[in-house]
Amino acid sequence: MTTNNLVLSGTITRSRRFKSPAGIAHSVIMLEHKSQRYEADMLRNVYVQIQVILSGPRFESVAEDLKAGVEVQVQGFMTLQQGRNGQNRLVIHAENVELKT
Amino acid sequence: MTTNNLVLSGTITRSRRFKSPAGIAHSVIMLEHKSQRYEADMLRNVYVQIQVILSGPRFESVAEDLKAGVEVQVQGFMTLQQGRNGQNRLVIHAENVELKT
Repeated sequence: MTTNNLVLSGTITRSRRFKSPAGIAHSVIMLEHKSQRYEADMLRNVYVQIQVILSGPRFESVAEDLKAGVEVQVQGFMTLQQGRNGQNRLVIHAENVELKT
Repeated sequence: MTTNNLVLSGTITRSRRFKSPAGIAHSVIMLEHKSQRYEADMLRNVYVQIQVILSGPRFESVAEDLKAGVEVQVQGFMTLQQGRNGQNRLVIHAENVELKT
């Protein structure tokens, strides 16, 4: 019961980079997704805004390209994270990222 | 830029069914997912609790089985939904569901 895989494309609206105390490089982007899907034979609008965390050396070569306005597709797993305001929110931990712009 | 696909397994913690004014059958379940993943060479705990909406006739045959305690795998798309408390939250709209119990 461990399946947890998400593939989501969208536009970066915010982006920041930092190194953790352990020296691991992280990029954190806000991804905005807009699309339309059929559900029960009705076309509906789909909107997602979600934080994506890209951790470790595998993302260092692409980190500089992850700027606001760039279109990307990310693949990874979802997890609940406690935000600074103490509220839980769902975020994506990326395992792969593709630049689409 | 329309890719939005999520596959998530977990245990149903809550479940309800209703028909919309248009007569469409809906099931709404709360899905709890617990697993572990490697990220930047470190094993981390992964926890998700998310609402899953199953709309339309394709789910009617399985609706009765979607009870608390049952393990399922759902495939669908994510979207932002305004909750009753006015807060936005991410939910899954299912396109397929598999019973795993």
